[in-house]
Amino acid sequence: MTTHRIEALTDGIFAISMTLLVLTLALPEAEKGITEVHNLLVGQSDKFFNYALSFVLLAVFWMGHHQQSHLIKRTDGRHLWINIFFLMFVGLMPFTTSLVGDYSNDSMAELSFAINIFMLGMLLALNWVYATNHHRLVDNSLDSRSIALGKKRGVITPLVAVLAMGIAFINPWICSFLYLLIPILQQVIQYRHRRMKGGAV
Amino acid sequence: MTTHRIEALTDGIFAISMTLLVLTLALPEAEKGITEVHNLLVGQSDKFFNYALSFVLLAVFWMGHHQQSHLIKRTDGRHLWINIFFLMFVGLMPFTTSLVGDYSNDSMAELSFAINIFMLGMLLALNWVYATNHHRLVDNSLDSRSIALGKKRGVITPLVAVLAMGIAFINPWICSFLYLLIPILQQVIQYRHRRMKGGAV
Amino acid sequence: MTTHRIEALTDGIFAISMTLLVLTLALPEAEKGITEVHNLLVGQSDKFFNYALSFVLLAVFWMGHHQQSHLIKRTDGRHLWINIFFLMFVGLMPFTTSLVGDYSNDSMAELSFAINIFMLGMLLALNWVYATNHHRLVDNSLDSRSIALGKKRGVITPLVAVLAMGIAFINPWICSFLYLLIPILQQVIQYRHRRMKGGAV
Amino acid sequence: MTTHRIEALTDGIFAISMTLLVLTLALPEAEKGITEVHNLLVGQSDKFFNYALSFVLLAVFWMGHHQQSHLIKRTDGRHLWINIFFLMFVGLMPFTTSLVGDYSNDSMAELSFAINIFMLGMLLALNWVYATNHHRLVDNSLDSRSIALGKKRGVITPLVAVLAMGIAFINPWICSFLYLLIPILQQVIQYRHRRMKGGAV
Repeated sequence: MTTHRIEALTDGIFAISMTLLVLTLALPEAEKGITEVHNLLVGQSDKFFNYALSFVLLAVFWMGHHQQSHLIKRTDGRHLWINIFFLMFVGLMPFTTSLVGDYSNDSMAELSFAINIFMLGMLLALNWVYATNHHRLVDNSLDSRSIALGKKRGVITPLVAVLAMGIAFINPWICSFLYLLIPILQQVIQYRHRRMKGGAV
Repeated sequence: MTTHRIEALTDGIFAISMTLLVLTLALPEAEKGITEVHNLLVGQSDKFFNYALSFVLLAVFWMGHHQQSHLIKRTDGRHLWINIFFLMFVGLMPFTTSLVGDYSNDSMAELSFAINIFMLGMLLALNWVYATNHHRLVDNSLDSRSIALGKKRGVITPLVAVLAMGIAFINPWICSFLYLLIPILQQVIQYRHRRMKGGAV
Repeated sequence: MTTHRIEALTDGIFAISMTLLVLTLALPEAEKGITEVHNLLVGQSDKFFNYALSFVLLAVFWMGHHQQSHLIKRTDGRHLWINIFFLMFVGLMPFTTSLVGDYSNDSMAELSFAINIFMLGMLLALNWVYATNHHRLVDNSLDSRSIALGKKRGVITPLVAVLAMGIAFINPWICSFLYLLIPILQQVIQYRHRRMKGGAV
Repeated sequence: MTTHRIEALTDGIFAISMTLLVLTLALPEAEKGITEVHNLLVGQSDKFFNYALSFVLLAVFWMGHHQQSHLIKRTDGRHLWINIFFLMFVGLMPFTTSLVGDYSNDSMAELSFAINIFMLGMLLALNWVYATNHHRLVDNSLDSRSIALGKKRGVITPLVAVLAMGIAFINPWICSFLYLLIPILQQVIQYRHRRMKGGAV
């Protein structure tokens, strides 16, 4: 079994999940008056922020998955199942995004979103650990520094998600902004790694 | 006609059907109070289970289709139509999943879901029997043991689905758990086959 | 510009449109009683038929497009636009299918569906005529018999659709069954052509 | 990181966004009488026009992205993020199309749509400027005339969108027709360029 079609399914599910996020935005109802459009748009600025946030987070996970699968040359049953559970939580994102969009001040909604991000982060990290352990699914020539970089990056998302879970009970509103740490911290690690090695992306 | 674009359409329909499953989860209505989120999430634990179950089952069918199409080198009109009817029932999964999600104790709902799984299993088995009969669409070098393995695996799903149909009228609640036999039994057959041959996936 | 990415977009839009057909099936509402499931399923047998019909028709158009693009080696601006308008009516299918599903005895609904099929048929035929005229986008070696076969097949769908338009005002219920002529007649033409040439699909 | 999978994600998101446009068309409600179908269809001629317009505009952006990525040979972090923000506004199109469909005479609705088109145009232009600056991501052999052509074409969409923003406050109804300038002007520039160079698409 080649990794090619897993990537096709992965790209498909990411693309659909990212596009379905648009359904979390409230559409105007035909009965309402014309003056409502302005209020509708301004009133759901939270939802627009959540749409953008989830879109960016899914893009970050897609890039993370992409970077891994670029180096993962083989697959086996367990690797396949890790990927399927990963995709299951990708597909769940429009649901949890809708939850926080409708209830941006609710701890349970923020907790659900944080769990979703936590599971995505954990499964992506597990994917890397499983594939690189004893060079199971990667080339033997893959250096230990690149493997370690992947692990370091894998730690960021679950850590931020755990932090978000805690803050969800204190101040749910701040939660959303916390996730912006994920792309920023990953960029920092990537940058430091590149400066040390002088390599390309 | 090559098999390449059938695979592209198949991957697409699987990816969309798997992602549309998320629409079976009830979204909170904007009018409801904030305290409702907790109840909403706990109250639909059945639906979360069904989401995960259908996602896993679709993944199993996708893998089954993938393994077959890896060995099927040619296509013809009938093979194409078997695939299209197979995809028709892939596309139906969000509907039948929604049925059992809303009515987890209803025999008719469970029966509909079981028929959907049964048809998927039968059409996938038919696809393999048609393609391997007299080595119609596979390489002449394909050994009879691999062909037999594919047939054995093809029997599991329809069998479990028929069992589920019967139990749907006795205890619809148990039905859902029954389907977990499908990935487990397939793993057992695969494992035994690999131990005999020592081959890779 | 290569034809590769047009095919990727085409496969994507077909896959999504075929999967969105499932949304034309009425989902049970949570408020309704459990005994409703049986009635719900039996009561929308028309919709199940329409789901299957539209799925099959889209599959027929997908195959037709596939067979053409297998022979079309180049593309240009006009060819691209023919394809985009073709895809526009592919994307419209869930809407017109929903119309005939909800109003199976309504002339206007059947007329809308017939116009959709007519446009798909016309644009696919136009695609072939444009591409093969003076061997514009096909290999010079493509024989005139294959070109003529494509044209003959292109005539079937618009003809059946026009017939359906007329019958929509007399007996809308019969309309749906009329479309089954499309795959049947195409099979007949294909079969006769193959018998004359002894060629493969 | 290769550009191949960015294109796969791009094609996927375009295909889904284009197909989700169909959800902006109002479906008949089962309760309404049969005579309503005619009124429903005629009454939403605006929506049909908007469906076609957004489909065509998305196709134009898809072609523009395609033509760029045909020449962009490498990618880097910033290029990736430009693409992701571009795709974010592709995914938003069914929402803004729905807004103008429901409120074709409302300035705010037209303004939202214009901003969406403006952002798509700006990000696509930015993508080209970033990639071609000092031949950052394109072949060194790419001539300055082709680079300039891409920039000229990139200016059209934002310009038309800004014009639409202004007119949205004067006569929102005219706005929609204004966007037809985008494919027409691009064709003109393309045509003039081709006449000067005698090159193919």
